Amino acid sequence: VAFEDPGYSVTVSNAAARAGISAVPVPVDESGVDVSALSASGARAVVLTPAHQWPTGVVLSPQRRLQLAEWAAGCDGTIIEDDYDAEFRYDREPVGAFQGLAPDRVAAIGTVSKSLAPALRLGWVVCPPGLAPLVVEEKALHDRGSPVIDQLAFATLVQSGRFDRHLRRMRASYGRRRAALVDALAAHAPKVSLTGLAAGFHAVAHLPGEVAEQAVIAAARERSVGLYGMSEQRADRSLSPSQLVLGFGNLSERAIASGIASVGDLLRG
Amino acid sequence: VAFEDPGYSVTVSNAAARAGISAVPVPVDESGVDVSALSASGARAVVLTPAHQWPTGVVLSPQRRLQLAEWAAGCDGTIIEDDYDAEFRYDREPVGAFQGLAPDRVAAIGTVSKSLAPALRLGWVVCPPGLAPLVVEEKALHDRGSPVIDQLAFATLVQSGRFDRHLRRMRASYGRRRAALVDALAAHAPKVSLTGLAAGFHAVAHLPGEVAEQAVIAAARERSVGLYGMSEQRADRSLSPSQLVLGFGNLSERAIASGIASVGDLLRG
Repeated sequence: VAFEDPGYSVTVSNAAARAGISAVPVPVDESGVDVSALSASGARAVVLTPAHQWPTGVVLSPQRRLQLAEWAAGCDGTIIEDDYDAEFRYDREPVGAFQGLAPDRVAAIGTVSKSLAPALRLGWVVCPPGLAPLVVEEKALHDRGSPVIDQLAFATLVQSGRFDRHLRRMRASYGRRRAALVDALAAHAPKVSLTGLAAGFHAVAHLPGEVAEQAVIAAARERSVGLYGMSEQRADRSLSPSQLVLGFGNLSERAIASGIASVGDLLRG
Repeated sequence: VAFEDPGYSVTVSNAAARAGISAVPVPVDESGVDVSALSASGARAVVLTPAHQWPTGVVLSPQRRLQLAEWAAGCDGTIIEDDYDAEFRYDREPVGAFQGLAPDRVAAIGTVSKSLAPALRLGWVVCPPGLAPLVVEEKALHDRGSPVIDQLAFATLVQSGRFDRHLRRMRASYGRRRAALVDALAAHAPKVSLTGLAAGFHAVAHLPGEVAEQAVIAAARERSVGLYGMSEQRADRSLSPSQLVLGFGNLSERAIASGIASVGDLLRG
C-alpha cells in the first residue's frame, strides 16, 4: 500500500505492518500525489487525501485524477480516499470526491472528527459493493460495531437540518481564523509564504531559506507557542525544506494574532 | 491460546487467526475448565469465564483455581478472564474474580453490554502493568479510543449511585425471570433438568436421552419459539449431548411461561 509523502506515514505504516503489508511513500508536489511514482512503486492500493492533501494543503489536479483512474483500472488497484475535512472550504465550492470518477475502485472515508468532535469516534466508509462484506467482517472482528446511541444522535442532527446550520456557522468561524493567520503573518513575517487551499484547519508556512525549522520550533516553545514542523510528516525527515504546518482550527482569532506576533522575529529569521 | 469447550470458540478462533495464533479447545466439566488438559495443550494463554462459565453456567471450583494459578506461574501463562455477567447473581454473593488470585497473570475483562446495553460498546481491561502499554497500542491501532461522551455518561451514572440502583432493580427482575423458567419447566417438562448457577441470563436444559437437540429446535421454530442448542457452542458438534441453552434475560415472565408451555410436549419427548 502506498501513502502520500509528506502525509500520514506513521498511521498508514503501522496499520499496514499489522496487516502484514508493506507501506511505501510516494511524493506529493503542487498538483498532489505523483501518479507516475505511484505506478513505479508497484503498490496495488494507495491512501490519498485528494481534496485537501494532508499536510501540504494542495488539491489533486484534474490531470492527475485522470492518471489515477487509469492507474487503478490498469492494475486492479484500490484507492482509499480520506476526505477528512470535506465540509470546510472557505473560498469556493469543494472539489468533487475522486470517488465519483472511479466508484468501483475507491473506498471513500468520512468522519465527524473535524465537523463535530474527535471524541465521538464516528466515521464511515463508502466502498465498492464487492469490498463491503470484507470491511464489515474486519469491523466486527475489531469491535463488533460502533456505539448505536451516538449514531442515532448524529442521524437526528443531520435529518433535522441542525448539522447543516452548524457547518455553515463553523465555516464562517474557521474562515475568520484562517484570515487572522494570513493577516498576522503578513504583518509580522511578510517573507513567510503560506500555501495550501483556503480549507480545513491548517496551512503550510514556508520559512525563509536561512531559518531552520527545528530551531524555530524550539525557540517558539520557550515562549509557550506550539509550532509543528513539516519534517515530522515526511518519510525522510532529512529531505524536508524548512516549513511549518500551522493549525488554526482550535484557536481564537485573538490567540492566533498574539501567537504569531510573539514569534514573528523567529519566523523572519 | 486456549478457549473453553463449550465456549466462545468462533469468537476466540477468529480473533486468534487474525493475530496469527492458533486456538485450541480445552474441555469444561462441572468444576469448570480442565486445567490438566489446558496444561497438556501447550497453550500459553487461555480465555476463561470462571465466575459463570459460558455456556454451561458452572463456576470454576476452588481447587481448579489453585491449579490454574500454578499453571500460569509455571509456564509464564496469561489468563484472559471474561467476567461478562459479573453483576448478576440471584441466589448468593458473586464469587471473587480469579484476577485476585494471580493479578500479575490475569487480564480481566468487564463490560456494560449485559448491565446496560450492548449498543453502548463500553468495556474495560484490568491487566498487569507490563501488558498495559501493549493493550493501549493495540486499541489505538484499531480505533484510536472509544467514544468519550459515552464514557463520561457512564462515569456519571456510577458516581451518582444510579448504576447501583439500576443493578439492584434489574437483579430482582432477572431473578424473577429465571424463577419463571424453572417453574415452567417443572410444570411442563419435569424430566428436563436445569443446570448452571442462578446467575446471568441463561441456563442449560438437559433433554431426556431420547430427545434430539436439533429436532426439538426445528419443531419449536415451527411454533415461533426460538431455542438454541449447546452443540453450536462446541468445537466438535457431533460430541454434544442433547442440551439447550435457554436465555431468559430479554423476555417477560409471561413470555417465558407461555413459550415453555407451548413446547412442553417437545421437551418431554
